[in-house]
Amino acid sequence: MINTLFLPELREMLATNNEQEMREFCSALHPARTAEFMEGLGNEESWEVLEHADVETRVEIFSYFDADKQHELLTTQNIDQVAELVAEIAPDDRVDILQNFEPELLANLLERLPTDERRDFLRLSQYPEGTAGAVMTSEFAKLSETLTINEALNEIGRQSEEYETIYYLYIVDAEDHLRGLVSARQLLAGMKQPNTQLHEIMETDLVSANVMEDQEDVANKVARMDLLAIPVVDDEHRMLGIVTHDDIIDVVREEATEDAHRIAAVDPLDDTYLKTSIITLSWKRGMWLAILFFFALLTAMVMLEYEKTLERWVWLVLFIPLVISSGGNSGSQSATLIITALSRGHITLADWIRVVLRELSMGLLLGSGLALMGFFASLLLVPNGEGINWLAMCVVPITLLFVTISGTLTGSILPLAFERLGWDPAMMSNPFVAGIIDILGILIYVNVALFILT
Amino acid sequence: MINTLFLPELREMLATNNEQEMREFCSALHPARTAEFMEGLGNEESWEVLEHADVETRVEIFSYFDADKQHELLTTQNIDQVAELVAEIAPDDRVDILQNFEPELLANLLERLPTDERRDFLRLSQYPEGTAGAVMTSEFAKLSETLTINEALNEIGRQSEEYETIYYLYIVDAEDHLRGLVSARQLLAGMKQPNTQLHEIMETDLVSANVMEDQEDVANKVARMDLLAIPVVDDEHRMLGIVTHDDIIDVVREEATEDAHRIAAVDPLDDTYLKTSIITLSWKRGMWLAILFFFALLTAMVMLEYEKTLERWVWLVLFIPLVISSGGNSGSQSATLIITALSRGHITLADWIRVVLRELSMGLLLGSGLALMGFFASLLLVPNGEGINWLAMCVVPITLLFVTISGTLTGSILPLAFERLGWDPAMMSNPFVAGIIDILGILIYVNVALFILT
Repeated sequence: MINTLFLPELREMLATNNEQEMREFCSALHPARTAEFMEGLGNEESWEVLEHADVETRVEIFSYFDADKQHELLTTQNIDQVAELVAEIAPDDRVDILQNFEPELLANLLERLPTDERRDFLRLSQYPEGTAGAVMTSEFAKLSETLTINEALNEIGRQSEEYETIYYLYIVDAEDHLRGLVSARQLLAGMKQPNTQLHEIMETDLVSANVMEDQEDVANKVARMDLLAIPVVDDEHRMLGIVTHDDIIDVVREEATEDAHRIAAVDPLDDTYLKTSIITLSWKRGMWLAILFFFALLTAMVMLEYEKTLERWVWLVLFIPLVISSGGNSGSQSATLIITALSRGHITLADWIRVVLRELSMGLLLGSGLALMGFFASLLLVPNGEGINWLAMCVVPITLLFVTISGTLTGSILPLAFERLGWDPAMMSNPFVAGIIDILGILIYVNVALFILT
Repeated sequence: MINTLFLPELREMLATNNEQEMREFCSALHPARTAEFMEGLGNEESWEVLEHADVETRVEIFSYFDADKQHELLTTQNIDQVAELVAEIAPDDRVDILQNFEPELLANLLERLPTDERRDFLRLSQYPEGTAGAVMTSEFAKLSETLTINEALNEIGRQSEEYETIYYLYIVDAEDHLRGLVSARQLLAGMKQPNTQLHEIMETDLVSANVMEDQEDVANKVARMDLLAIPVVDDEHRMLGIVTHDDIIDVVREEATEDAHRIAAVDPLDDTYLKTSIITLSWKRGMWLAILFFFALLTAMVMLEYEKTLERWVWLVLFIPLVISSGGNSGSQSATLIITALSRGHITLADWIRVVLRELSMGLLLGSGLALMGFFASLLLVPNGEGINWLAMCVVPITLLFVTISGTLTGSILPLAFERLGWDPAMMSNPFVAGIIDILGILIYVNVALFILT
């Protein structure tokens, strides 16, 4: 929804070229809100308004536009002005934005960037999506351990605009090896001893992330340690950048949404629901529906094998949806519990025996409960010739017990197996769980029926 | 998995009462790691080791123990020592920990807390779970707007240990109304003008959360604005507390896991997977399986109505799993997409027409695809008397088209309806979607068959 509250005023300012009011508009509110109010403007108009903000505010407002608007603005406006803006964008955001540029335009733009920013872009853009390197920023405060508290305070006071955060200051040696951390809190608390050197107060037992580490693992570390930022290092422990708390929140949200979509057999979206085209969405859903269709077809073929049985006891057919859905539901419960526990770091592969035993017990418990309900359902639906046919009454309950146990076991073992193979458990498990359980369910059902009734 | 690396050394230190080494063990590492190494110790042992840390480190190490260990330690050790520790725990964590205490023990403990901490606990514990009030902390820096930069720096240097964060300083008037915000970054950058008053540099366009606001909405605000902390105010805009970035990460993770579990028809767990007892887990799964069982039973009863049709064309039975699972899968895809988009704030109720139209188009697209596949499946499985019976071949494709559209529509409308009614869309939708689609699927299937074949 576009906020149109200020649109008329903004358009009037533009028409009358009221510079003072436009400057005020750009600086009075939180940049996020300014960006919100500008959403309804066209590209030319937005660009004109932005020009009235000082560079720093301009970049901040710009960073709150949605990705589409950012892309449109940067690709349609004067390239020299664009380069000026791009040079000031936070390095990690800059990589995200420029990655969608056409190669030719990107080359033109890079030429116009200051050398430092160009190199920085080329370096950061080399890390694959999903790694610590791809979400880190290179604008962090690094200091030498021989600096005093007073010198450090002056240094960060002077440079504060250049860093993503000045609340964590990293201590490195001459070769950029990470040695320690001093927080702004420590500096402020230590103002009374201005000549203390940083190595006397720095923390040395640091948690860091390798530049190629999975962003989900990095987020788990930050969450566990309640960090404001985590340093990112290479294999030689040289410091390359930091990932800050706000990026971690984005990572956590992104990974959680991806997991939820994968569990429901939707290939993760690159964009929000409304911004993804219907064709893309249909493709991301259709490919999985096709795989699931194939499993269902296998189920149908299995049933074809047992057509005689089903024709002889037609009442068996009534319970097919019940049998299949009981197995499918208990399986998807197990799979989801295991997948979320794996991704939050609550269980590891080493726990597999415990997990499988737990799921076996739960399959027994839940299966017994469903079996009891299935018995009463049989009393209701199984046709009785002369008096109740007790044997026939037992087909559905026994099937439900076995099917539920198969569900919990398949739902727990498959995600663990995929994790073991290095595949994303969320991506592969649930459709497979559903497919396997459909087939298993029918096989169990018909064989239990044949065993009991003949 | 318990880290046993230091256990022998720790036990030896305890046996020989080596005070110096224990002090060193407590202070040398990051408290989170110290806590990890202490996991294998018994309650008495842990408590003894903790006594060798200074109060501040003791509380930090304690805060990294898992909830069970914390509870056990506090309920088994000497109550006066416990009170001493509890008085130092961060106010928001304190509420979480003490909430699980037995009323009698809690009363005893509260008596022993300093007045301020006791009042603080009683105030914070009154907010219902899931609100901003329940996750906020009362330890924030609040300053008067007439203070100068220099005075503010001294103030936070002196008080830094008492606040959860000193990086955001809130400016309030005499009645605690929130007036503005000054960041530590601004203070450090302004050290050159030490006599500037805070009201000259403070930001006044602040984002805040109402104390009764849903924690998920609070998290969305913080994520959108990249905040380090968000102020929590009452209806009169008086400042009550702050929610910091680390608590926001916990909220995001907790809400995402809850959503995932609810979507899979598991009542959200209060604890991690391995720590939840099998009985509790079975109950949280069983209640939903029972509801789903009831839906499946309704499906069976619907089928009973059409027993004659199914007996006449037994091949129809083969496709029952296919029909049901196609509807269920497309429905759960839609429901999950809508539920996650709602909870991330990517769509609102006002978008409902767009959403429903999109899902209708996708239902048509996906349904046509499945219908095509269904046609080939019919060629394979539908019995042919003399030559291909083209009419019979159309039953399954047409059914699949209608069922898929019903799936995408039910899967999108139900979550929106639940949101409109103020219920959690994730909690109620998916089981209902699955249940409704099962019944609808059979109804559509049999009626299409009757219409075409007779």
